[in-house]
Order: sequence, then C-alpha cells, then structure tokens
Amino acid sequence: MMPKPEILDPQGKAVLGALPRLGFEGVVDVRQGKRFELEITGDVTPELLAQVHAMAETLLSNPVIETFAVRVEPTA
Amino acid sequence: MMPKPEILDPQGKAVLGALPRLGFEGVVDVRQGKRFELEITGDVTPELLAQVHAMAETLLSNPVIETFAVRVEPTA
Repeated sequence: MMPKPEILDPQGKAVLGALPRLGFEGVVDVRQGKRFELEITGDVTPELLAQVHAMAETLLSNPVIETFAVRVEPTA
Repeated sequence: MMPKPEILDPQGKAVLGALPRLGFEGVVDVRQGKRFELEITGDVTPELLAQVHAMAETLLSNPVIETFAVRVEPTA
C-alpha cells in the first residue's frame, strides 16, 4: 500500500533528505507506505483472493490517497 | 519491514479484530509493517544492493523490533 503519486509523502521526503547526510548516494526518490501481512489457512482460492482485495480496498487502505497491490506469498 | 514475531503489533491486532465484524472471514493473523520504495537510476549492482541493505538496517528500520527484506522491482 503506497501513497498515490500525486499525494505528498513527507515521511518519504524526510528519508530522501537524510540519505546523503548519512553518506548514502544513488537514490533519486523515496516513498513510504504500509505493508500488511494477512495469514490465511488453507488454499488461496479465487474467492478468498477477491475477499482479500475487498479488505484492502475498504478496510486497510484509503482509496482516496493510497494504491495497493495484493501478493500471495507461501509461508516457509 | 515488519515487526518481529515476538513484538506486539496492536495495529495488526486491531485490524484482525475488525475483520469478522465487517464480514471478512478466513484470516487467522494480521501484522502491520512498513514499505519503502527507493527509486534508483541505473543498474542494480551488488555494491548498490549492499548499500540499500545498509540503509534499511541503519536508517529505515529499528533492528531491535523490526525485520526487513530488500526486493528489486524493475519499473514498468
């Protein structure tokens, strides 16, 4: 979940400004967003994935200012 | 960047508690963390990747309570 490109991201800008002062170079932009890990038991069915999309859209993100992506990661 | 497993995550727990009230089922745990997108120009060399690791460890994360992973994603 990341702030939309047209949304100001003061936290990302603060990190971007701090990098050269700390000796890090080569980064031209930083955006700060959120990451949610949802643990699921059982198989990832298309229905479940649709439900996770609905959660991300209605509960986890603010669709006015944020975009999100859903990624499935098998647990080790 | 995610809170370590032994660290309490009240935001994640709040989301977990809200899901059934909103009609979502099948999620057994939720953890909330952060996501940083660093935009780089040029090639991702091993040196650059090592530097991004150092940034994540020293500036972006709090290694006492958080773990992090670095992933390279080509821009579209």
